[in-house]
Amino acid sequence: MTLAEGTNPVQLLQDLIRQPSVTPELHGAFDVLEAALMPLGFNCERVRFEGDGSYPVDNLFATRGSGGKHLLFAGHTDVVPPGDTAAWRYQPFAAEIVDGTIYGRGAADMKSGIAAFVAALSQVPEAGHISLAITNDEEADAVNGTDKLMAWAEAQGHRFDFAIVGEPSATARVGDSIKVGRRGSLNGQIRVTGTQGHVAYPDKANNPLPVAALLIGALTGKLDDGTEHFPPSNLEFTSADVGNETTNVIPASVLLRFNVRYNDRWTPESLIAAIEEVIGNQDLRECSAEFTVVGRPSRSFLSPLGGGVETLVETIARRTGIPPELSTGGGTSDARFIAEYCPVVEFGLPGPTMHKVDENVRVSDVEELTALYAQFIADYLAGE
Amino acid sequence: MTLAEGTNPVQLLQDLIRQPSVTPELHGAFDVLEAALMPLGFNCERVRFEGDGSYPVDNLFATRGSGGKHLLFAGHTDVVPPGDTAAWRYQPFAAEIVDGTIYGRGAADMKSGIAAFVAALSQVPEAGHISLAITNDEEADAVNGTDKLMAWAEAQGHRFDFAIVGEPSATARVGDSIKVGRRGSLNGQIRVTGTQGHVAYPDKANNPLPVAALLIGALTGKLDDGTEHFPPSNLEFTSADVGNETTNVIPASVLLRFNVRYNDRWTPESLIAAIEEVIGNQDLRECSAEFTVVGRPSRSFLSPLGGGVETLVETIARRTGIPPELSTGGGTSDARFIAEYCPVVEFGLPGPTMHKVDENVRVSDVEELTALYAQFIADYLAGE
Ligand SMILES: [Zn+2]
Ligand SMILES: [Zn+2]
Repeated sequence: MTLAEGTNPVQLLQDLIRQPSVTPELHGAFDVLEAALMPLGFNCERVRFEGDGSYPVDNLFATRGSGGKHLLFAGHTDVVPPGDTAAWRYQPFAAEIVDGTIYGRGAADMKSGIAAFVAALSQVPEAGHISLAITNDEEADAVNGTDKLMAWAEAQGHRFDFAIVGEPSATARVGDSIKVGRRGSLNGQIRVTGTQGHVAYPDKANNPLPVAALLIGALTGKLDDGTEHFPPSNLEFTSADVGNETTNVIPASVLLRFNVRYNDRWTPESLIAAIEEVIGNQDLRECSAEFTVVGRPSRSFLSPLGGGVETLVETIARRTGIPPELSTGGGTSDARFIAEYCPVVEFGLPGPTMHKVDENVRVSDVEELTALYAQFIADYLAGE
Repeated sequence: MTLAEGTNPVQLLQDLIRQPSVTPELHGAFDVLEAALMPLGFNCERVRFEGDGSYPVDNLFATRGSGGKHLLFAGHTDVVPPGDTAAWRYQPFAAEIVDGTIYGRGAADMKSGIAAFVAALSQVPEAGHISLAITNDEEADAVNGTDKLMAWAEAQGHRFDFAIVGEPSATARVGDSIKVGRRGSLNGQIRVTGTQGHVAYPDKANNPLPVAALLIGALTGKLDDGTEHFPPSNLEFTSADVGNETTNVIPASVLLRFNVRYNDRWTPESLIAAIEEVIGNQDLRECSAEFTVVGRPSRSFLSPLGGGVETLVETIARRTGIPPELSTGGGTSDARFIAEYCPVVEFGLPGPTMHKVDENVRVSDVEELTALYAQFIADYLAGE
């Protein structure tokens, strides 16, 4: 049993922040990671995906060991743009540490998670079957990122038993909450078409707007009462557009856009069928209402609460004294892609400043997350 | 009693069509009219109005006689643009006569009405108190046209007893229908504002779209059951716009636009109050709904059915054998401005081709309208 020379998670986080890896620009982010992982026995492979209507993206797959339980860590090095850098108190890619807080774009979301996990690896025996799947496109299209990287890894013969995504998951303090599932998300639009005409002769026209209003009323809101681990599924209209500035013309059509966040009661398929049924039950007054799904829906998932999840809960409870909340809240993340391969949780720092000006994390939190990751790796691998 | 040399209405109509007086370009339209009116004893005055957010407009006021009943003829020399002239079988400003039909922009709307009235004047005794109020902006803004011309004429001391507007009013044959009133028109908008937020956290947002949908449902459609001479008042939404293409954002606000066509049960003031009351009666779910009137509403009017209207009905019935339908249908016209000064009817040719490619009227219809105008002038002035 050999211990790798301990990697300093804060130093690694600074090195990562100093690479301005705004999606999909990689800069040296993977160089920094490879330099930390290769001494720990990892074989690193860069995989570039492109096409499918999106830009090319660099991905990194690092793996060591074989046989036994296979633990996956997943995350992203890309960050959202800093916006107006003049609005930042500390420059977004300088990684300055002031009064125990490290500032920079990606500090919370989620270079701290990656830095803590890699540092944790340096604190545990250099054994065990462990891989890292790191993309540089989670914040934007996510077309040539984790989704394809997981398919690629499976095609390479990799099978995973449990995955941690290092996204911010805590609410107030490290370890108070982990995410064990996500709602699904579906974007849709409905084109309601009637018959154009002059406002002075409404009988010769068929105004689609009252029908659109009817559909908004019928479809808006909760779709269920929630499930054990999820809030109610909910549909919100996000836009309604006619674009008719001619005051005396009844328009021909209106385009409605909506989003559904849905729990584990629904699949995209059952949801689409339910929406079609609600539309079909309305009196459309001879208008047509053409419903189409926009883009690819993300499925909801809930990871099995035994196995890796149970071990992680115990690890956290033992160290912090309180078992973490098992959350399924928040938006979508790349965990949705991983959930198709193995149980997955999101476990990272508190993220109140993510995507904001002066994004930051506390140095002590980075160290605490490193310690929790290290303890979990040890516990999980010992549990074989 | 002297008869002026008879003016040929068809020749006069051709002369008018050959002036391409697309709003507000006058070209020689008033020169043509003045040349026809001055020999008939009319004093012609050109009045140019400008300002109030619109372009300058030329207007013509011609008057003769004094005392006794004062008959006004009103109309417009401006025409809508011809569009793609290549689509016309006969060039829009050539005034070609083919198989008894005269083609050209303005043939129906409404140079034929003006030509017929001026020609009619040449067929009756050169006596009687008669004025003509002709604008060159009815088809567009109508800000510096008839509205201001009527106010100007009143300021000059002119009082009118009855007015004919030579707009197309017939449905199938000359004299089958005259318009004795018009619905009013009011344009409004409602800005519904809620609270922007993320679709994943609907409880932290307040989506204005369901409230907008509620308002569309509550306000759309008939406002009454109609009156003796008018169809029901009716409200149509003409647009609803958010312009939010971000699929995960609940929008802050939506702008609804609508138009009301309303009968003589309503004034703009009572209508505005009624709309405000309906809005106030809805559960706005803590959204705000800001209703504003757009532009200047036009009032509804119904001319008293005795007096000039009665004489005109009798004149038409005597010549055609059938009394005209007393219509209040169709869109707004400059008659709404004149109605504030005296009873007014619209009486002109059938207008199925108005504003269209190959606009045309039958030569025989122009001659028949001239005869009817001449007979009415004689009957009306004889009725003193
Ligand atoms: Zn992230
Ligand atoms: Zn007209």
